[in-house]
Amino acid sequence: MRSDGARRGFTAAELASACGGELHGGGELEILGIRSLEKAGPSDLSFVADRKAARKAQESNAGLLIVRAGEGSWNRPVIEVPDPSLALIPLLHLFRPRRRPRPGIHETAVVPPTAQVDVTAEIGPYAVLGEHTVVGGGCLIEAHCVLGDSVRLGDGVWLHPHVVLYDEVVVGPGSEIHSGAVLGADGFGYATGKTGIRKIPQIGRVELGSDVEIGANSCVDRASLEVTRIGDNTKIDDLVMIGHNCELGRSNFVCGQVGLAGSTATGDGVILAGQVGAAGHLRIGNGAKVGAQTGVNTDVPDGQEVFGTPMMPFRETMRVIAETRRLPETARLVRDLAKRVSRLEEPRGE
Amino acid sequence: MRSDGARRGFTAAELASACGGELHGGGELEILGIRSLEKAGPSDLSFVADRKAARKAQESNAGLLIVRAGEGSWNRPVIEVPDPSLALIPLLHLFRPRRRPRPGIHETAVVPPTAQVDVTAEIGPYAVLGEHTVVGGGCLIEAHCVLGDSVRLGDGVWLHPHVVLYDEVVVGPGSEIHSGAVLGADGFGYATGKTGIRKIPQIGRVELGSDVEIGANSCVDRASLEVTRIGDNTKIDDLVMIGHNCELGRSNFVCGQVGLAGSTATGDGVILAGQVGAAGHLRIGNGAKVGAQTGVNTDVPDGQEVFGTPMMPFRETMRVIAETRRLPETARLVRDLAKRVSRLEEPRGE
Amino acid sequence: MRSDGARRGFTAAELASACGGELHGGGELEILGIRSLEKAGPSDLSFVADRKAARKAQESNAGLLIVRAGEGSWNRPVIEVPDPSLALIPLLHLFRPRRRPRPGIHETAVVPPTAQVDVTAEIGPYAVLGEHTVVGGGCLIEAHCVLGDSVRLGDGVWLHPHVVLYDEVVVGPGSEIHSGAVLGADGFGYATGKTGIRKIPQIGRVELGSDVEIGANSCVDRASLEVTRIGDNTKIDDLVMIGHNCELGRSNFVCGQVGLAGSTATGDGVILAGQVGAAGHLRIGNGAKVGAQTGVNTDVPDGQEVFGTPMMPFRETMRVIAETRRLPETARLVRDLAKRVSRLEEPRGE
Repeated sequence: MRSDGARRGFTAAELASACGGELHGGGELEILGIRSLEKAGPSDLSFVADRKAARKAQESNAGLLIVRAGEGSWNRPVIEVPDPSLALIPLLHLFRPRRRPRPGIHETAVVPPTAQVDVTAEIGPYAVLGEHTVVGGGCLIEAHCVLGDSVRLGDGVWLHPHVVLYDEVVVGPGSEIHSGAVLGADGFGYATGKTGIRKIPQIGRVELGSDVEIGANSCVDRASLEVTRIGDNTKIDDLVMIGHNCELGRSNFVCGQVGLAGSTATGDGVILAGQVGAAGHLRIGNGAKVGAQTGVNTDVPDGQEVFGTPMMPFRETMRVIAETRRLPETARLVRDLAKRVSRLEEPRGE
Repeated sequence: MRSDGARRGFTAAELASACGGELHGGGELEILGIRSLEKAGPSDLSFVADRKAARKAQESNAGLLIVRAGEGSWNRPVIEVPDPSLALIPLLHLFRPRRRPRPGIHETAVVPPTAQVDVTAEIGPYAVLGEHTVVGGGCLIEAHCVLGDSVRLGDGVWLHPHVVLYDEVVVGPGSEIHSGAVLGADGFGYATGKTGIRKIPQIGRVELGSDVEIGANSCVDRASLEVTRIGDNTKIDDLVMIGHNCELGRSNFVCGQVGLAGSTATGDGVILAGQVGAAGHLRIGNGAKVGAQTGVNTDVPDGQEVFGTPMMPFRETMRVIAETRRLPETARLVRDLAKRVSRLEEPRGE
Repeated sequence: MRSDGARRGFTAAELASACGGELHGGGELEILGIRSLEKAGPSDLSFVADRKAARKAQESNAGLLIVRAGEGSWNRPVIEVPDPSLALIPLLHLFRPRRRPRPGIHETAVVPPTAQVDVTAEIGPYAVLGEHTVVGGGCLIEAHCVLGDSVRLGDGVWLHPHVVLYDEVVVGPGSEIHSGAVLGADGFGYATGKTGIRKIPQIGRVELGSDVEIGANSCVDRASLEVTRIGDNTKIDDLVMIGHNCELGRSNFVCGQVGLAGSTATGDGVILAGQVGAAGHLRIGNGAKVGAQTGVNTDVPDGQEVFGTPMMPFRETMRVIAETRRLPETARLVRDLAKRVSRLEEPRGE
């Protein structure tokens, strides 16, 4: 799956160079791993993501810290960078190199003569490829993946074990799909006539852009006629369901257990927090943010932050929630007022 | 998975005949595909499902339209039918014939001598069948499916890749199960004693009726003692969870990410919208409709439409939602009234 | 998967002995199965879990009942025990012995020379093990499971078909994982810079304690740097998502479709009902109970029962719900009061 070989050590100077940061002290210090502030020891690197972490960092045993340039003064060697989270990425890759394909097709994989597999791709044990399927350069298809007919994978696609791609699914270059994800299963489309429920064959497709990530056990259903589309760089978490004909824009974050009903579209840069549900045939605009568990039942304008059921702009929902918490008290006051008003209305005994 | 061969063309007259409709114009027109109104070109058929679509249809480039008989006048050849959605079904099958089994057992499949596989069934690569398992005529068991012991599949069952059926699961004729679905895993049953949590063995079964469809990565748990049952013609979407001992009626629609706790039953013709959750030991009556994300915590009478948390009849919930939206304003008014009433109650300075 | 052989019969005396109960009558009665009160016949055992069941039991056709000692008088042979649910467990195992491993590695399994598989373990068809993976005594790894590199399984672990464990996942002794579960997939961690979204490699691990159960198609993500941990004896239902860096305590019940965002921790004995969602970086205290569909957005103190969105102590939410139901009526009263107060405020025509 991911690891290649054991951890190695690097000097603080090497690490500063690898992430483009400025080292203050400890050039010869050897670092053996990257750990959390709580768990790091003298041979570990850790990082200070924000001000809250800064307090913890002073008490950490980490031998080396990545910190935001110009923030705070430090009691140990540090690497100053503009953005600690970003700087961490090349360092994590240093300590744990990304699993690379070992080119070749495992002897147990089923690959028909009509399939085209690039010679730099790895096809793992028991993978099954359909007719006319195309696998690009540097792809990594792990054990037990099943690809239907006419599937197309761009260069550098990584399918973890047990991914299923139905016929005609297209995955753009650099995309990564986690175990158990199912792309291209039938959309939920039926016609109800006098003779009962009849299934409407789903003849559309699924297309993923480049650098998409799909979490474990998520489902993206094929379109009824056209294409269910996931835009470039969009990241989808585990157990998410994308209904047929949905079109997601670029650079979306779709958190765990979100569900989108059919034909709903999102713009670019949309964030859907955990367990959000959206009805069908809606548009969630560019840069919109939808809070956790929200039931999206109307379009969301560009840039709007919405939350709650009923869904409203975030601040309005927060006000509603505050009043909901004291609703019993408010209702008691109302009933009390009703009595007092009635008394006031009584003709005065003059 | 599904496609067999390339798309072919059909004349408008052939299509009208295939769906039992009445053709107006364009008998010799050759149609190469079925597409949405937005994407269809002069060689494509499209369809007009409702009045809203009718406006779009006038601007579509589709060469041929399926329309509801007697509705509107059209600027191009049309096929008139009583119900466009239903008429579409045989035409979709014309252009994309349903994947048919290629009888035989793949050489890599594991099929014990005690299993009975009909000679017209297809067993795909790496499928694993348990002891005494029975596979009916025309079944299609795709790659990597795992069937436990004493599983029984009626005629014409279609299991997409990576379906798991635990021991003794029964699937009725014509049912279709999508990738990653798991039927018959243990129900969530425990006894809590002084020595901690003890698992109660789940020795019941799962039985699906005929023409059931189960979506990708959905789970139907086996009963504790008896049977978890899904009625004929019931359609279940992706990522749905049906707890142990549930009994679903016929012709239900269970949308994505619905979860039913143990021992809950539904009548016939029930619709559960997306992300509905139901507590255990409830009955949701015949023809009931439950709105999205509803938390079902009591029985639902036959024919009732319910929605929301707290769950209420649909119209009542809509009224509650309307008032919830203006709750901050109402609460402000209440506090204002309280002050004014206090002032009114003050003894008048006479 | 689970069954070994056909059901056998036992005498009532044998059953009483097996569960440590006291038999009243019917010592020679032969019992052929365990069934629900509704379905049991004269050769079946059934059980009376609580007072509600006691009424049903009087009308049941069951030949033998397990009942709570000292409760009620019975019209047939009974076995008296302190706790009927607990007493049922050994009897269920009698009628349906737990599936035991058949030691050996299936000829189709892929096991590298660096893997260590105990001789008493069973490795099923098409299972794939990674480098340096360790499988303990009496483990049962069913068909199509995929284990990454450096995975470690304690003694007696049972993986049902199609389980995926990414690299370095640790599963404690006696744990059971159902089909389609994915442990160790990447957490949802990204950094957003000027050049767009960048994935933060997730180099942590997943560790399950002893006697953990994980339901079908559930996901436990690997930590970003350290460990996502599930405590001893914790039971997780189907389609649950546990985000990266979460730490669950011992003896938790996590019901179907629950989702925990990253870095949230639970104490011991926590119960999360169905479809609960929790935000990240929270602590849910020892013995806390969270009602169905609750959105957990703050810490929950030890022992507290919380419910609803907004989440509040259970009783407060019940009061809010009661008032929410009559909110339209309350709001009407408020508007009526506003008019009446305005009238009262009018200068009196004197």
